[in-house]
Amino acid sequence: MKFVILKNKLLDNLNYVSKALSSKTLIPVLMGIKFELNEKGLTLLASDTDISIQAFIDKKDIASINNAGSIVIQGKYIVEIIKKMPNTLIELEVVDNYNLVISAEDSNFNLHGMNPNEFPDLYMEKTKEPLVLSCNTLKEIINQTLFASSVDESRPILTGLNLKISNGVIDAIATDSYRLAKKEINIDIDSSVNINIVIPARNLLELCKIIGDEENLELHLFNNKILFHWENILFQSRLLSGKYPATSDIIPNDFAISLEVSYTKLYEMIDRVSLLTSEKDKNIINMKLNNGELNISSNSPEIGRALEKLDVDNDNSINISFSSKYMLDAIKSFGTEKILLLMNTDVTPIILKSEQDSSLTQLILPIKTY
Amino acid sequence: MKFVILKNKLLDNLNYVSKALSSKTLIPVLMGIKFELNEKGLTLLASDTDISIQAFIDKKDIASINNAGSIVIQGKYIVEIIKKMPNTLIELEVVDNYNLVISAEDSNFNLHGMNPNEFPDLYMEKTKEPLVLSCNTLKEIINQTLFASSVDESRPILTGLNLKISNGVIDAIATDSYRLAKKEINIDIDSSVNINIVIPARNLLELCKIIGDEENLELHLFNNKILFHWENILFQSRLLSGKYPATSDIIPNDFAISLEVSYTKLYEMIDRVSLLTSEKDKNIINMKLNNGELNISSNSPEIGRALEKLDVDNDNSINISFSSKYMLDAIKSFGTEKILLLMNTDVTPIILKSEQDSSLTQLILPIKTY
Repeated sequence: MKFVILKNKLLDNLNYVSKALSSKTLIPVLMGIKFELNEKGLTLLASDTDISIQAFIDKKDIASINNAGSIVIQGKYIVEIIKKMPNTLIELEVVDNYNLVISAEDSNFNLHGMNPNEFPDLYMEKTKEPLVLSCNTLKEIINQTLFASSVDESRPILTGLNLKISNGVIDAIATDSYRLAKKEINIDIDSSVNINIVIPARNLLELCKIIGDEENLELHLFNNKILFHWENILFQSRLLSGKYPATSDIIPNDFAISLEVSYTKLYEMIDRVSLLTSEKDKNIINMKLNNGELNISSNSPEIGRALEKLDVDNDNSINISFSSKYMLDAIKSFGTEKILLLMNTDVTPIILKSEQDSSLTQLILPIKTY
Repeated sequence: MKFVILKNKLLDNLNYVSKALSSKTLIPVLMGIKFELNEKGLTLLASDTDISIQAFIDKKDIASINNAGSIVIQGKYIVEIIKKMPNTLIELEVVDNYNLVISAEDSNFNLHGMNPNEFPDLYMEKTKEPLVLSCNTLKEIINQTLFASSVDESRPILTGLNLKISNGVIDAIATDSYRLAKKEINIDIDSSVNINIVIPARNLLELCKIIGDEENLELHLFNNKILFHWENILFQSRLLSGKYPATSDIIPNDFAISLEVSYTKLYEMIDRVSLLTSEKDKNIINMKLNNGELNISSNSPEIGRALEKLDVDNDNSINISFSSKYMLDAIKSFGTEKILLLMNTDVTPIILKSEQDSSLTQLILPIKTY
């Protein structure tokens, strides 16, 4: 393998695939990035077995291709070296048995590599009929729901995002069983498409870090994995197996109390009151609505207490407690000026919606304090 | 104690003193900030016994002073609460036995405090004849030398900066016994002043974080402590006791080799080569000067090797090894375009100087590799 390429072209693509590098792995070769050069261009590939990312650099973006070939190079070093190289043409050449020589101007590196045949086959093939989504839609879905997924591995299925598509509607749900986020949007898709999968939340976070703003991306679906494809990048994630819990009955349709509040006011009140709560006490705060006044308060026997008041145009009454952290997460997911708090009793779910964005529903279970 | 003050006025000063808060301490009261209000103004005080910081807010910057008094409040909470308060006037009042009520608009906090009499007396008095230095001079001294001090507590005296003043010259030295940084500047000071103290490096770092750009500051010297005073702030640090090692004989006066190199070139070459070194191998790299060519290289049996070349106008020869980390630290301390490397043999110190800034000297001991 021997080729010459502009530093930044190589670096950009190394940065993409390096997101899939294993930091700790039982398979040493997976600490590396696989370079594979042929007359069509250069393929870079990395995988931690959970995520695999491939970037293809077309021959038109390579200054010269002298010899085809391949090698696996420790990811950490190659990325750092290319990053610090002068901003110019760089030559990469494999010499005697898996050594990679990297040279530019007066800089010369000789790195020990690994046998590319030891790199596992990741089968990053595409299907014939991918779904097409705009990157922005996918990012919005992820940003508005993913935070509600579980980090507790005792119920692995809840560590994923449940993505359902049917009748031309995408329905994305994340829940850790104490709260739930649901995003429902119409998309331009064949109404016969019927999909129900669970994608690990962690992998979607990584995906979000590298997809851009402009393009569409393709979703290629398989039994146990999903492949995202945009521009020159393939991003493959395993799927979680098992049945995602049915959640459609959890969100009530009718509410005794519907309270509309300014996003900013509500966020700031809860943010301040939460200062006197702690993770170990579930960040519990209390909300009381009475006589047109909303009181939000916290009480920590060791530290002190906080109380925030807001006049509201509402004559209902309720006294309900919940996690301030969950409530702040839920509020933050809305980008709108006003938020609707929908409630029935102090032991039934609190629902957050917004009249300006009907696609999003947030649910938080109250906490009993007596 | 009861007063009303603009949020930002209080927050700015809380931020100053909070730099001295103990995160872990055997003395609970030192996790707090002491508020002391009288008719002249408000004094804030915090200490981790190593550093003590006091900020005084004059009565002209306080909207109203209703009752004098004092209290100690957990630092972590009061700073966070004031930070998140609306940007308006805030009222603070001590009520029944060391509780502090903080209120603004519709926000109300009630924090448990501590008895101010339990707060240790820190004796932050001033001397009659302080030294006066510009903040910029002090910051320059600290930034150019402090990194060379030791982090190893086995020789405590080396964890400090040795500051000597005599004959109108300041001489600041830091060394961890493998490298040494020395800054020597003339200042406008009575030539009879004779000082030789060692200030903990950690404390000077904290000082650097809070001193501004413009003002002068006063240095008030005591047997076992130093007090810095600028604007409304007092910053007190203990001094290290013991004799700082004599270093004047360590820096040679004559050199067989004097090599002038571009700052940027030298830094980038060493930075790249250092990628293939590791802390556990002392970040060792090799520098070879021969036939007008400077070669800098590293070799890591497990990873690979790196070589950087630079043509120089110098016909000396040397082959010398040293820590790339120490060399990068030393280079970085210069703000000049060119750097002078001064050497004699491969086992004697490497000296870095700059013709554009003669006040600074960096010394690095070479490492034997055979």
